[in-house]
Amino acid sequence: MSNRAVAGPEIEKLIQLLAKLPGLGPRSARRAALHLIKKKDQLLIPLARAMGVAVDSIGVCSTCGTVDTTDPCTICSDPRRDTGTIVVVEDVADLWALERAGALNCRYHVLGGTLSPLDGIGPDDLTITALLERVAAGGIREIVLAVNATVEGQTTAHYITDRLRGLDVSVTRLAHGVPVGGELDYLDEGTLAQAMKARTQF
Amino acid sequence: MSNRAVAGPEIEKLIQLLAKLPGLGPRSARRAALHLIKKKDQLLIPLARAMGVAVDSIGVCSTCGTVDTTDPCTICSDPRRDTGTIVVVEDVADLWALERAGALNCRYHVLGGTLSPLDGIGPDDLTITALLERVAAGGIREIVLAVNATVEGQTTAHYITDRLRGLDVSVTRLAHGVPVGGELDYLDEGTLAQAMKARTQF
Repeated sequence: MSNRAVAGPEIEKLIQLLAKLPGLGPRSARRAALHLIKKKDQLLIPLARAMGVAVDSIGVCSTCGTVDTTDPCTICSDPRRDTGTIVVVEDVADLWALERAGALNCRYHVLGGTLSPLDGIGPDDLTITALLERVAAGGIREIVLAVNATVEGQTTAHYITDRLRGLDVSVTRLAHGVPVGGELDYLDEGTLAQAMKARTQF
Repeated sequence: MSNRAVAGPEIEKLIQLLAKLPGLGPRSARRAALHLIKKKDQLLIPLARAMGVAVDSIGVCSTCGTVDTTDPCTICSDPRRDTGTIVVVEDVADLWALERAGALNCRYHVLGGTLSPLDGIGPDDLTITALLERVAAGGIREIVLAVNATVEGQTTAHYITDRLRGLDVSVTRLAHGVPVGGELDYLDEGTLAQAMKARTQF
């Protein structure tokens, strides 16, 4: 009795698709669907339209690999950015996170993942060749490897460093250390050891 | 620097609208947007289409007040349902919850809220008159008041009971008691007292 239809298949379909979004489960997807239906003019119609626009206009930047509605993307075509520094990230989400931090007025290169032999992901599955071509084209002073501090991320960083050897470019990585606002007592030993080793003048 | 555009305004707009869904905040809306963009064919296009269909087809049932793509709704037009029992709920979400429980093969009436003089919500802002008309039309044996166990819900229940007086219909309410799987130690005194008062033969 519990899977009787309470509404037309169109509503069930909407709930099912919403439940596939990260952060929404079956229960919150139902709540979201009902919210959308109730706020038809303020939310459902604009969101349907925004998704339609996204379907039509979003693509991958042929230079750096981020997603955007223009190619080259907003960042690659921004003349105020330092063209000499490329920050290498695993994923578009990492690029967005670094931009939110606003740390560097640079350009990016999205790898599209990390090397993972066990999962069958080799160098050709990432955009490493495109990165080497960007560097070989000249004008790049520094490559910042902003990959995750995981085994796969670090393996990928080492591989890229090897491939960049011989090219006239400085390769750097993000600093390890105590997160801002972090309490020492809750940090792992690896981070604490790195933070101590890289201690700076106060 | 932190609010520099990292992507076209179309993507920012999508993120902003997703952030208005219950259960998603600004951060998870970004994650959801990126997920949608990456899964364009499997998720973004079907969801955009489902929302377009919802915009065009969803309305309110003129009999019971639920949302559906047909009028009368799926429930009101289901011939296998008992037409003699109307379960009165505050909101469509409550109707969906009762249907998931599959407790009663009945029809419903959605009030659209509760009486709340402080918020300026009186009987005319709810669908109480429509409920009385359904009862007056005949064929209704029982009205189950499945409103929330809150002050506003109970006030509304009392008001409806008063208005139904004189009509030949039995008015019932949901049982109070220990939730299934609930531990006594964590329950409030009011619920425990009600559960004890309404104890049944084992």
